[in-house]
Parts: sequence; structure tokens; C-alpha cells
Amino acid sequence: MDLHPTVEATAEDIASMEIRGAATIGAAAAAALREQAEASDAETPEAFRAEVRVAARRLHETRPTAVSLPNALRYVLRRMDGGDVPLLRASVVEAATDFERRLGRAQAQLGAIGANRLQDGDVVMTHCHSTDALACVEAAVEQGKDVEAIVKETRPRLQGHITARQLRELGVPVTLIVDNAARRYLDDADHVLVGADAIAADGSVINKIGTSGLAVNARERGVPIMVAAQTIKLHPATMTGHTVEIEMRDEREVVDDEERAAIGDITVENPAFDVTPPRYLDAIVTESGQFPPESIVTLMRELFGDGVAEPWLEPERR
Amino acid sequence: MDLHPTVEATAEDIASMEIRGAATIGAAAAAALREQAEASDAETPEAFRAEVRVAARRLHETRPTAVSLPNALRYVLRRMDGGDVPLLRASVVEAATDFERRLGRAQAQLGAIGANRLQDGDVVMTHCHSTDALACVEAAVEQGKDVEAIVKETRPRLQGHITARQLRELGVPVTLIVDNAARRYLDDADHVLVGADAIAADGSVINKIGTSGLAVNARERGVPIMVAAQTIKLHPATMTGHTVEIEMRDEREVVDDEERAAIGDITVENPAFDVTPPRYLDAIVTESGQFPPESIVTLMRELFGDGVAEPWLEPERR
Amino acid sequence: MDLHPTVEATAEDIASMEIRGAATIGAAAAAALREQAEASDAETPEAFRAEVRVAARRLHETRPTAVSLPNALRYVLRRMDGGDVPLLRASVVEAATDFERRLGRAQAQLGAIGANRLQDGDVVMTHCHSTDALACVEAAVEQGKDVEAIVKETRPRLQGHITARQLRELGVPVTLIVDNAARRYLDDADHVLVGADAIAADGSVINKIGTSGLAVNARERGVPIMVAAQTIKLHPATMTGHTVEIEMRDEREVVDDEERAAIGDITVENPAFDVTPPRYLDAIVTESGQFPPESIVTLMRELFGDGVAEPWLEPERR
Amino acid sequence: MDLHPTVEATAEDIASMEIRGAATIGAAAAAALREQAEASDAETPEAFRAEVRVAARRLHETRPTAVSLPNALRYVLRRMDGGDVPLLRASVVEAATDFERRLGRAQAQLGAIGANRLQDGDVVMTHCHSTDALACVEAAVEQGKDVEAIVKETRPRLQGHITARQLRELGVPVTLIVDNAARRYLDDADHVLVGADAIAADGSVINKIGTSGLAVNARERGVPIMVAAQTIKLHPATMTGHTVEIEMRDEREVVDDEERAAIGDITVENPAFDVTPPRYLDAIVTESGQFPPESIVTLMRELFGDGVAEPWLEPERR
Amino acid sequence: MDLHPTVEATAEDIASMEIRGAATIGAAAAAALREQAEASDAETPEAFRAEVRVAARRLHETRPTAVSLPNALRYVLRRMDGGDVPLLRASVVEAATDFERRLGRAQAQLGAIGANRLQDGDVVMTHCHSTDALACVEAAVEQGKDVEAIVKETRPRLQGHITARQLRELGVPVTLIVDNAARRYLDDADHVLVGADAIAADGSVINKIGTSGLAVNARERGVPIMVAAQTIKLHPATMTGHTVEIEMRDEREVVDDEERAAIGDITVENPAFDVTPPRYLDAIVTESGQFPPESIVTLMRELFGDGVAEPWLEPERR
Amino acid sequence: MDLHPTVEATAEDIASMEIRGAATIGAAAAAALREQAEASDAETPEAFRAEVRVAARRLHETRPTAVSLPNALRYVLRRMDGGDVPLLRASVVEAATDFERRLGRAQAQLGAIGANRLQDGDVVMTHCHSTDALACVEAAVEQGKDVEAIVKETRPRLQGHITARQLRELGVPVTLIVDNAARRYLDDADHVLVGADAIAADGSVINKIGTSGLAVNARERGVPIMVAAQTIKLHPATMTGHTVEIEMRDEREVVDDEERAAIGDITVENPAFDVTPPRYLDAIVTESGQFPPESIVTLMRELFGDGVAEPWLEPERR
Repeated sequence: MDLHPTVEATAEDIASMEIRGAATIGAAAAAALREQAEASDAETPEAFRAEVRVAARRLHETRPTAVSLPNALRYVLRRMDGGDVPLLRASVVEAATDFERRLGRAQAQLGAIGANRLQDGDVVMTHCHSTDALACVEAAVEQGKDVEAIVKETRPRLQGHITARQLRELGVPVTLIVDNAARRYLDDADHVLVGADAIAADGSVINKIGTSGLAVNARERGVPIMVAAQTIKLHPATMTGHTVEIEMRDEREVVDDEERAAIGDITVENPAFDVTPPRYLDAIVTESGQFPPESIVTLMRELFGDGVAEPWLEPERR
Repeated sequence: MDLHPTVEATAEDIASMEIRGAATIGAAAAAALREQAEASDAETPEAFRAEVRVAARRLHETRPTAVSLPNALRYVLRRMDGGDVPLLRASVVEAATDFERRLGRAQAQLGAIGANRLQDGDVVMTHCHSTDALACVEAAVEQGKDVEAIVKETRPRLQGHITARQLRELGVPVTLIVDNAARRYLDDADHVLVGADAIAADGSVINKIGTSGLAVNARERGVPIMVAAQTIKLHPATMTGHTVEIEMRDEREVVDDEERAAIGDITVENPAFDVTPPRYLDAIVTESGQFPPESIVTLMRELFGDGVAEPWLEPERR
Repeated sequence: MDLHPTVEATAEDIASMEIRGAATIGAAAAAALREQAEASDAETPEAFRAEVRVAARRLHETRPTAVSLPNALRYVLRRMDGGDVPLLRASVVEAATDFERRLGRAQAQLGAIGANRLQDGDVVMTHCHSTDALACVEAAVEQGKDVEAIVKETRPRLQGHITARQLRELGVPVTLIVDNAARRYLDDADHVLVGADAIAADGSVINKIGTSGLAVNARERGVPIMVAAQTIKLHPATMTGHTVEIEMRDEREVVDDEERAAIGDITVENPAFDVTPPRYLDAIVTESGQFPPESIVTLMRELFGDGVAEPWLEPERR
Repeated sequence: MDLHPTVEATAEDIASMEIRGAATIGAAAAAALREQAEASDAETPEAFRAEVRVAARRLHETRPTAVSLPNALRYVLRRMDGGDVPLLRASVVEAATDFERRLGRAQAQLGAIGANRLQDGDVVMTHCHSTDALACVEAAVEQGKDVEAIVKETRPRLQGHITARQLRELGVPVTLIVDNAARRYLDDADHVLVGADAIAADGSVINKIGTSGLAVNARERGVPIMVAAQTIKLHPATMTGHTVEIEMRDEREVVDDEERAAIGDITVENPAFDVTPPRYLDAIVTESGQFPPESIVTLMRELFGDGVAEPWLEPERR
Repeated sequence: MDLHPTVEATAEDIASMEIRGAATIGAAAAAALREQAEASDAETPEAFRAEVRVAARRLHETRPTAVSLPNALRYVLRRMDGGDVPLLRASVVEAATDFERRLGRAQAQLGAIGANRLQDGDVVMTHCHSTDALACVEAAVEQGKDVEAIVKETRPRLQGHITARQLRELGVPVTLIVDNAARRYLDDADHVLVGADAIAADGSVINKIGTSGLAVNARERGVPIMVAAQTIKLHPATMTGHTVEIEMRDEREVVDDEERAAIGDITVENPAFDVTPPRYLDAIVTESGQFPPESIVTLMRELFGDGVAEPWLEPERR
Repeated sequence: MDLHPTVEATAEDIASMEIRGAATIGAAAAAALREQAEASDAETPEAFRAEVRVAARRLHETRPTAVSLPNALRYVLRRMDGGDVPLLRASVVEAATDFERRLGRAQAQLGAIGANRLQDGDVVMTHCHSTDALACVEAAVEQGKDVEAIVKETRPRLQGHITARQLRELGVPVTLIVDNAARRYLDDADHVLVGADAIAADGSVINKIGTSGLAVNARERGVPIMVAAQTIKLHPATMTGHTVEIEMRDEREVVDDEERAAIGDITVENPAFDVTPPRYLDAIVTESGQFPPESIVTLMRELFGDGVAEPWLEPERR
């Protein structure tokens, strides 16, 4: 039982980060499984299943913590079904193709859904930079709605500047503020609109540091909070209680070496993300529709399986 | 009835900002009233009262929105009392001297009080830079307590760097974070400790932008919030419903011209302060003791009168 | 490919409002699809599917914002399944019949479920008039439970009077109050019980104006809030972010012309409904069981599809 | 020791309700005490004190639950002071005159203070009809501020219509809504502005039924709530734990006899007032300045004594 | 149509409590249905279905309020499927076997999932004694994590002592406190970890008396609350609004007769359980993964059917 | 300058705990100061003041953390006033006598005030045993009100049994519950009524362990919380930020040695008290009237001085 060269090549490219970016990795993994299925000369259903499983395992082990890779593999393996090899093969091919098609249309679809939540004349407050979130504003503009934005600059990396520029390109009036000014300007906002780096089974959202503090204040000020995120941001391992590792980034993003020396001997902490509990969020907007955060686990299970078993393991090891 | 030259000179120096800084202005105004009282040759109590009142009015009109100036004048005028000129004179002299003495000892006194709220081993989170707040930490260190600090950098002006440096000089271990990381590190903090730019009769605290958002998150995380502020920060005009004007600062503090041009045509809002309602604050620590924010109005009235009448006006105009 | 005359007639009757009322419209639409399916002489599965879809589209376009019409169509189309025309036909006929049967039994079923939540001796507070809500009380009475009611009169149209009368007919003791007295009498209530005009995918409930204010107060007073609503009140378009349009009603319901003239030149706003967020609601009781509002989207998807695609459109246009 | 005829006459007029209205009763009682003091021929301080006390007791017993009567008596008795009869007499005369002067200026003064809390362009939401609340809007208009109003009609007696008319006379744009629509329109309001029927020592405010429900919703929506009330609304008996009796009004205000008969045999509850806890209120605006509700007890004690002893009783019976 | 002797014997043993304990009852009931299916000589699918249904009904009526019994029956009946008797038989056998296998592995599986939520160095606070909760700690210890525990003694029966002992056997450092000390020690806890006696469709958790008060305090202190419970604790009857009966236990658990006599004539209330609403819980950890409490109804429906119909009744009686 | 033998004797008896109990210590200290003043042969006001101060210092140093001792000393020293020795002496004698008289009447007075907050038919929930709290119930009973009680047993020392017995002696129906059952029975309670061990300047109340958790739950359930405490429970040192030391008690109150050995090697924590923040309390009832907790600092300053200076120190050392 040999792995298809495409599987091996894809695995190597993911491992070497030649293939990178959540959507690109997901699409490549699905395509590799399809290649494996199409080229398989397995003679029994058991052999076919095992072969696809091994391919998935090979792909998975390259970067076990990447967010979209297990999603692609789970999506396909969950849909592998049939009593004989041709049926099994067809199911894998169809699932892989579906997954790619979803990926290709996800941002446009969720943008349209998010846009429906916005009314003509609304003001949205943004945090960090998220193309999914921007897709909602873009679709609202295309629907002919006037939308304005209050953009938090988002220290330490000031991705708010990117958001501001892209909103201006859409013709959206932008007010730029420091993060500290958020509570004051929430009184002028109709929505908080953010993206997500990962979404957990318990409904909490992992996003750029500062999101959770903003969400708590938005709730206190009575402003609804919308998270725009493609379903590849759903994190199936959280169904089994795994927590999402929070990256600690270079301290020089916070303070440069010279200034730090001037201050004296200090510790600098620079976490990239934080965790917002579901009770501070109103809706998660995906290409599959919008969901209260407390029920996103249902979508996660529907798309990626129940998460209890790791589908690339032999059944007896799950 | 002539104004004493010192009153005139002080008024001019305050107006020209030769005399500046809350404590310095307050002390100068009190001293000027004392000079006026000592040099007065008024022959009737009415004449004496009128003379001091005119002196106070002259001083007040130089910078009617300065925070400590009306406090000094109100403090002295409220204590002007007596049935004849010598008694009146003595009361003014004593009140002015008391006020100066209070000013001179206020920070040390409130520092000792704030320090009593801290336990050995506590971690405080700071926002911006406040010498009153630092005085509490300094006193705690002098009491032999080990205190650590999590310092928010406090965009846009990064006064957190000053705080960090001064804390290091006290030997306090410092962890520096961006403002966006506050909610995450509140889990490691035992107190939030901030200063105040002004304190209103309804118990709300005007302080550096970002304070209110921090306070809301601290309440949500179960961390008590302490405000350290000398009583010259109490704002008597708020007793009559006046709100504290929030300064809007230079937009270039938020984004420099070049980056702004690159982003496109945007609005930048840069308020210096925000308003934290009393329900998100646990205690206001002053040199007169600590108070729940809801009862600070009582101290305000005790020190500076009931605020309804402007004491430098003729009685019939109040 | 012709539409069956029944489809055309039903469409015209819905458009002309000869057929009206959520349940009646839903039943008629389902029946029309069944007629179309039974009479179809389509020769291929594709042709059959297209024919039913066109019939559904014809029906849908008559009143695209009616709440039960898309539910009926989605329910049937979602269940149209099979590899040949007879199987497809059977699936449509069965789904349409199922839908009608659900409709016919829904109120009694949800009444029994809601009644189970009530204990002997409980006091319920009602808002407006809802036959679904009353069905819960009626079933509780039939279960032999003593139930009392506090009935809010529900300005501007005083539908509370209807509720009061029908409760009296059930033998339920009634206390009538003005809407302003609700918070005070919540201390005497064990449940708040309301109906729904529409239920959104994010778990929010659209119901008679005043519901949301009552729910906020009920939460503050510790009284659980139950929403009784048949599943035809679920609003599938909200899955794609669409918001429910709030009807503005005649101002004369609020103030008559004479009184208004006496007051002077004023604006009168008279929205019929408001939106209650899920965090202020404890349970939505439907004929399919009770659900926390945050998971009603799961039921919505199960009954009516995922809402992303409009099933009466050609697949390539979805 | 005889009561002065004016005291007797005033007592009878209060008892017979010839003298009515909080301000009128208060002024009459203060004037009667002054008459008694001026006409007294008591020869010892003890006799004088006893005489004034008896006069106060006579006045108090006429309507022991009237809200302003004990305030007037307490205000004067608390200020009765001096080592001989002339000093005592002078203190009573001065206190009674002060009390009358306060009364005469209170509404204008508190109006100016409340107006200071309003900004140009603000929208206030009102409940019921309160001349103290209207005085704040009137003063804001006189300060040149544009203010708009959202007026709740305030069932059952629709005093909102009076408020709407008087606001129109001030040139204030008015939007009239039913009480049930309050939560929805709170999103358009910058302040909730209400009066008070009585204010308790624990900081709770007794006001027209519906105030507490509005306040809870205003807090939830992030809108500050201001209570405008003269200090004669402070209820000194609450310092000793007495609760304010809530009047139950005619049921026909809620439903007329005919409609009630049509509904069937129901109970109607029609309380005139409800109690709003201090944590849902931001400020109480009086002629003595604004106060957080939690510190109003301090003003109550300053004006009317500590409330523990009833000052019209003999010292040994207190 | 005869019941298989095993069904009858099992029914009798459950009724006589020879078979007891949730897991044991569930396994026995599933096994009995399998026996019935395997031994069936039904000749038509209808007859087979009826036979299994009758067996289930016989088993159900033995202890209709036992929590795991209906789960076992529903699990199997929901999966009974097929067009002929052999297929039906196979489906029952498979479902019964699956159910047994789930039971056998449930605690280990949920323990591993719950352990994933714990970090090295975490402190958990426990209430009462739950083997499911302990399984999470045990798995965490096996994962090499250092975990400490604060154990509430859990009056009246002091099951905390059992928990403390078993935690010590795992090598977990234990701090024992009285229940009254919980809020104070929540400041030292990273998680609250409890089991469940039953879980309702509305997301509320029925657990040992004191759980709900602990959960409210944990939310107030910002400590997340995890419920560990096998899916046999899900209570399908709650889907139809049934509430879970709360057992009232012997008063002597609270106070012995002698002490009671010394106190005098008092009432003693000793409920065994209380109800925690879902908004105070963060996650329910089951062998099928973790879920926000608001979406547990989805898992309940997936495992045990929609709960509306009682599957052991004839279809026409549901 | 000699100390009066009574001062010395009193100091020794306090130090040796021959004199014990808050009220007894307070009364003895006040009496000792009176003796010193009466017997003083100081010839100058300065000498007299110094003498009394030294006496106070001697008394204070015996048990500097006792709660009533500094109150007595501060009460008297704050009222020492006058321009010559006879006036000074008279002021001390009067203040000491007043203090004793207050002490003697405090419980009866606060009982009457607390009773006024209770209505006929009310149910109060109690925690621990407090004679001040019981005085409120007793006075309510004497006012002819029917009051019932739900008594928490209050582990670890079960003082609830004492409360239950004394309530029965008053004829009050009692329901005894374990502490864990509090949240459930709060639904049946109209008030929570507790005493206090100490009250801090920031409005927080130090009382028997479990009070704070009860208060948080009472707020969540909408039940008002009343604290009954004589003013000697006010803790003046907290005005300067000092925190109240929480006593840790014998671990054997929690678990006896035998049981502990059976459990294994555990830590037992047994704090006697906890701290309830003012936002969870509705009123503090003292013999000086009732107060919102946020304004108790005003009463503290009125009775015992501003707390900044320690009045028994030489002025230059304060």
C-alpha cells in the first residue's frame, strides 16, 4: 500500500511551509486525498479505507496544530462511505471536491450573510484585520448600504491601519482610534465586527489579543458583537477538550531594544491572541449561515465529525 | 478697595501659565488670598469679606477650568468666618496655610493609605502614569511589602514606560504589556491601581483614556479597582451638574502624517480622557482617607462647600 | 412544464390574501406542492425536481415575507429525495402530508410540553395574546394543576384583555395590571410566558412590543421566561443574516387625533414588535420539544434546511 | 403655654386639606413655627424649646404621612439653638425663613443643575409628569441647548400627554411612545429623566409605577438615569427603616366597568408607585446639588437631622 | 408474542432493585432488548417492531423515573431500522451492543476530554463526589499534569471527604474547606469541576444541593465551571418539558433528633439536589465530547431521539 | 502627669482579657477616660489634652486590633473641646457618658429600625448568629408582625442552631437548612438578614464565613440584604486603608483528627470571616439609622473622626 506521490509531495510542502495559509493548506490536503483515492488500486473496501486513512495520517502529522489541515482531512474522511471500492472512491472524490468548492466560495458567502445583519447607516467597530470581516462590509456596500467604520489601531502590530486602508478603498468613511478609546466610541457604534483565528467547541472565539476586552465592553455598552469566520476556523480538536495554544510573539513588537534598555530590567509579555467566552458574542457568521456561539459545536460536528475519534487512526486505536 | 499686588501678580502668572501644575496653582492662589487678608485695611467685616471675595474672583477668572484653582479658593472662602475683621483675617490666614500644608503632605499621606490596601505579594496593574498611584506602591515597598506590577503601555503616549521605569527604580518587578492584553493579565492581578485627572460629584472618575474600559474588565474578572488621587482632583463644579470637558489631543499622537497619507482620507479621534462610572470602582484613596466613589461628594462638600453658590460672587448674585 | 391549476389558484389566493393566517397559508402551500407532485408527468428525476421547484417558486413569490410560507416550501423541498420519479413523488407527497399533520397537532403538542414546565400552584405572567402560550396554560389546567395568571394589558391594543377573558374561561384566576406595573408583580410570578411572532437563527425572539423590556426585568428579578411557539414561527431567512422587518403601525392606536391636536405637533412611533436577545430567555417550547434559544437554529436547519440556499432557485443560482 | 392661633389655624387647614400640596404644606408649617417663636413669652430656654416642640407636634399629628410636613418641622427644630430665649427665637425665625426661601428657589436651582448634565443635541426619555424634571429641560433650553424628548405615555393615567404638551410649549421636539416601546427607544436616548415622589435613606427612589422597570432597562442599554427632585421629597422617616407606603388607586383607571364585565371576574391591581433601587440610578439632582443615590442620606441628615429621634417629642420619649 | 424470559427477569430485578446503579441498569436493559431481538420469531417487520416495543415498555414501567433506563431503551429503539426482520434484528443487536460499549468506555473517554481542559499547575474546586469528575483529574494526572484540588466538604453528607481521599490516592494535593468558604477560595481556583445527576434539555444541570450557588459565585469570580457527566445522565423526558423531581432526604442528615429537640419545634428541609441554569456553566464534558450547556439538547436528540414521542408506545398513542 | 489608677487598672484588665466583649471593652475605656478627666489637675489646656491623650494611648496599646476599643477612644477624643480646662473636662465627661449611653441603647434602637424594614408576613433568611440581627426580628414581633425565618446552619460551628433556638423562643416559625441549600430557599425569602463583625470604610462588611457567597446569590435571586450592626462594629482604621485581619481558626472545627487521618494528608483551611463588597448589600442598619453601605464612611467620620490621624498620638507624630 503506497502513498500517492502527490500525497507525499503535499505533505513535504506543508511541512516545509512551501504550502502555507489556512485555505491553501486545506485545499491541498483535500486534493491530495482525492488523488490518492482516484489512483488507488485497493481491492477491498477495507484496504481502500486503510489507504486513505494512511494518506490522511501522513498529511496530518506534518503540522498537527495547523487549523485548517485537520478540517480538510476530517471533512473528507467523515464522508468516505460505501459498500465497495468504487462507491468509496466516488465518495472521497466528491467530498474532496466539495471541500475545495466550499473554500473557494466561503468568504463571498459569509460576506453576504454578514452584510444582511447590517442596516443602511450602521457604524461598525473593527479590531485587527480580518478579510472575513471585511467581506461583510464589502457585501453591505455592494447591497447599496451606507456603512461607516470606527477602526481600532490594534497594538502592537497596528493591523487596524490595513483595515482602515481597505475600508477606504471600499469608500467606507473611517475613524481611527487607539485601542484605549474603544469604550468611549462604542456609544457611536451599532456593531462590533471581528474575525477569528480559531473557534472552539465550547463557543469561545480565539482572536487577536484585545478582542475579549472589547467584547466585554461591547456587552456592557449594549452593542452586539458579530464574528465573521469561515468554517475552516472551527477547531475540531476542541471538541475533545483540547485548548488552543496561544502564540507568544516577539517582545520587540511591544518595545524596541533601546527603549527597553532605558526603562530597565523588565519582562515583556506579548500574546498574539485571547479567548472570548460565548456569552459576550452575539453571532458567528460562516458560509453555512449564522449561529449563536453556543451552537457552533453542532456545525462543527456536522462538517468534521464528532471529534472524539481521530479519523486518521486505525479504528482500534481511537 | 485695592487688590494686593501679590494677588494681581499671581493672577497674571496663572493666566500666562508661568505658574502651572495643579499643586503649584493651588498653593499660589491660597497664598495670594492670605497676602490679601494680612494686608487688608478693611474697617468692617462686610468690607473685609468683599475684599477677599474680589481677590478670589480675580484669581478665578484667570483659568476658570483649571482643576485646583477653584479648590484653593473655595477651601479658603468656606473657612472665612468671624464677627470682626481680626477674626476674619485670622480665619483666612489659617485656612490658606492649612490648604498649603495639606498640599505639601497630600501625596505622602495618600500613598500610605493606598499602601495599606496592598498585601505582601500583591500584583498591581497600572494604566498611564500617576505620581499619586506610584506613591501607594512606594509606600508599600517602604512598609516592606513585595509588590509586583503589570504595566499597560497606555497608547497613544506610552506613559506606561515612565511608570515602568519609576517602578523599576523602586525595585518593583515589572511586566510590560500592550493595552489590548489587559483582560488576559487581569487574571494575574490583585488590584488595578490608577490615578485621576478629576473626580466628579456623582462619583465618576475622569482619567486617561482607557481607564473605563479597564475598569469594566476588572469588574468582570473580579479584580478590585483603586483610584489614588489628592483631593485637589475633586471637581467642585460637578456638584452643580457641570460635566468635565474632555480634551481632544493632536491626531499625530495616534498616527503620523506619512502613515496617515498612506491609509487615505480618514478621521482620527484622540480624546485624552474618559469617564468611569462609580459602579466599576472600589475605592478612591485620598489624603483624607479612602472613600467609596459614591460618597466622595461628602468629602467634596466638607472641603470645598456645597458647590451650589460660587463663593467669589456677591451673595445676591449666587 | 405546466404548473398544476391548484398551485396557480393557491398562489393567487395567497397573493390576494383570500388565504391568510400563518397556519392556513402553510397548509395550503404544502397541499399545492403535493398536488403538483401527484399530477406530474415528468419523465426524468431532473424534470420532476425542476417542476416542483418552479411550483414552489411561484408560491414563494406571492408573499416573500410571510413567515410560514417559506417554511412549508422548505420543509417539502428539503425532503424531496429519490433516484427516480416515483420515489421523488412519494417523498414530496409524504413530506407535504407530514407538514400538514404537524401543523394540525402543533399547538396541542407544544401546549402539553409547556404545561410540563408549570407546577401546581404556579403563577404565570403573560404579555399580549398568544394562542400558543394559552395552550400551555390550558394543558396545565387539564393536567389538574392550579395555575394563576398576572396579565399585562399590553398597550397600545390591549390584547391582554383577550388573554384575560380566555384564561377566565379556563377557570384560571386573573390579575390584570398595566404594563408599567410588571416589575413589581414579577415578585409574585413563577414564570413569564409569551408567544412569538418570529424566531431568528441567532436565538432572538421577535414578539409584541414590550416583550424585551419584560424579559430584561424578569431576568433581573430571577423569574424564568418561556416562549411558546410553533415551529412555523421559525424564520429560516435569518439563518443567512436577514433581519426580521418590524412593522410600524397606525399612530392612532397610541393617541387619537383629538388628543394629539391638543398636545401639539408631536411625532408618534408605534412599532408592533421588538427583539429579545436569547440571553434573556430560558426556553422556547415548540411541538418538537423545548430548546434553549441558542440552539433553536439546529431545529431550524433540521426542519427547513440550512437556509443558505433558497431551495426554489435553480441549483446554479443558489 | 398656649399654641399661637396661627399654629392652630394652620394645623386645622392642613388636616382639612385646605392647605395641600407638598410645597404649600411645608411653607405653612415653617411659617407657623416662626409665628409661635416670635410671639413666645417663654421665660426660660427650656420653656421656649418645649413650646416650639409642642407647636411642631400639633402640626405633625395632622397628617403624619405627608411628605413635606415633617421635613419643614425637622428643618426648623434641628436649627433651634442658643443659650437664651432671644437667641433661640432668632434661630427659629431664621430657620423658618431659610426653609421658605429654599422652597421658593428649589425648582429653579435644581433645574439649572440638571440642565448642566445635558449636552447640546441630547435626547431625554421621560416617564410620567414631573415639574422638577421639566425644570431641567427648560433650563437647558434657556442655556441655548437643543434638546429632544422621547415621552412615555405612562399608563394608566397618561400623564405623558401633559409632559408632551409642556415640552412642546418649550419648543422641544417630542416623540410619543407607549410604555412597552421604551427599551427599543432607549437606543436613541442619551438620558432617562424622571422625578420622584419620595426618596429613601437607602437611596431608593419612589416614583410613578413603571420607573423601576424603565431604570433596569436603561442600565441594561447603557443609558444614564437622572432623578430630579427637590429636597422636600427626601423622606426622613426612612432613616429609621420606615418604608414608604405605596398608594393603591382606583381600578377603573386600568379598565372601565363595562370592559371589565366583558372580561369576567378578575382582580385588578393599580399601584401608583414603585421603588427603584439605587444601583439602577446615576444621580439625584436637588437644589443642593447632585448626589449619587447612595449618598443622599448624608444630605437628608444635614437638612433634617439624623432621623433617629422624632424632634417634636420630649427628649425623654425619643 | 411472548416476552423473552431475560426481559422479564431483568424487569423484575430492576423493579426489586437487585439491579441498581445507572450504568448497570442501562446495560441490563440494553442486553435484555438484544436477547428479545435475537430470540424473536416474528414473521413480519411490524410484528418484530411491536415485540421489541413491548419488551421496552415492560422494562420502562419498572422504574419510570430512573435516569439511565429510558436512555438505554430510547438508544436502541431509535436505531431499530430495516425493511425486513433480519435487518431489524441486526439493527437492534448492534444498537444494544453499541450502547453497552459506550457505557463501558464512557468514563475513561470523558475523563480524557475533561483532562484536556486542565493545564499543568491548575487548581480545581470540587463539590460533592463524582466519579466522572474524578476521572478528569485522574486523566490529567496521567497526562503528567500537576493538579491541585480545593475540596468542599459538601454538607449534609460530607461526600467531599470521599473526594478528598480519592484525590489523595491519585497524589493530588488537597485543601479541604467548608462550603461556606467557597467564594473566598474561588480566588485560588482555575476551574470548578462538578458531576451531574441529570442534565435537562434546556441546558440546566441537576446536581448535588449547593452546585447552583457555587456556580453563581464562580461566574461572579470569573472562574469557569465544567460539568463532567456521561451521556446516560442526559434526561430525555425534559425535552418535553418535564422537570426533574428533586428528592427530599431524611431530615436527620441535617440535625440529629437530640439537637433538634434542644432547638425546639422547627421544620427541616433537606433537598438532595438543585438546578443550575446553563448561563452559569461553561462546558458539559461527556464521552461524546464537550458541549456548551445550551447545545446539549442536540446531543440528546442525536442519541435518544427527539423525545416528543415515547418510543415504547404504539405509534398511534404517541 | 500621672495616669489615673482606673486607667491603669482598666488597661491591665483589657490586656489580660478580664474585660472582654466589644461592648464591655468600649464602655470600660470610655469610663476610664472620664475618670482621668474628672481627676485631672492639669493647669493648662495643653497639659489636660496631653494627659487624656496619654491615657487613651495607654488603653489603646493593650489590644490595638480590638474592634470597639479605638472606637471608644476616638469617640471621646474627637469631642474633647474647649478653651480652658473646665470646658475640656466637661467635654470629655459628656462624651464618655454619651458613648456609654449609646452602647446601652444601641441594640434596642437598631432593632426597632431594622424591624421597620420588615413587613407583616415576611420571611427572613439568616446566616450565623447575631444578636443585632435577632434584635430586628424581635422588634418586628413586638410590632405585631408575623415573621418567619429560614435559618442556615452555618458550618463549621453551626451557630444557626443558636439562632434557630432563639427565634423559636420569640415564637418565630423556623426552617433549618444546610448552607448548600441557600440559593434554592432564597426564592422563598423576602430578606437576607445578617450581622457584622466589622464594617470597613469602603462599605464592605466583614462577617462570618459564607456571608459573601450568600450575598452574591441573594442579589442574583433579587432578594435584598440587610446588615444589622451597632456602630462599634465600624472599623475606623479602614479609613486609612487598613484591611481587617481575617482570623484562621482551628482545623478541627472542620474535620476531626480521626476522619482526617482516614482521608490522608490534606490541608484544611478554616477562615472565620469573609468580606462582602458593598454592591451586594442593600442597607446597613445601625442605632444611628440605616445607611447604604457606600455611605457608611460618613457616619464613621462623624462618630470617630476622619481616621487619618491617630488621636492618641502627639499632634506632631500624626
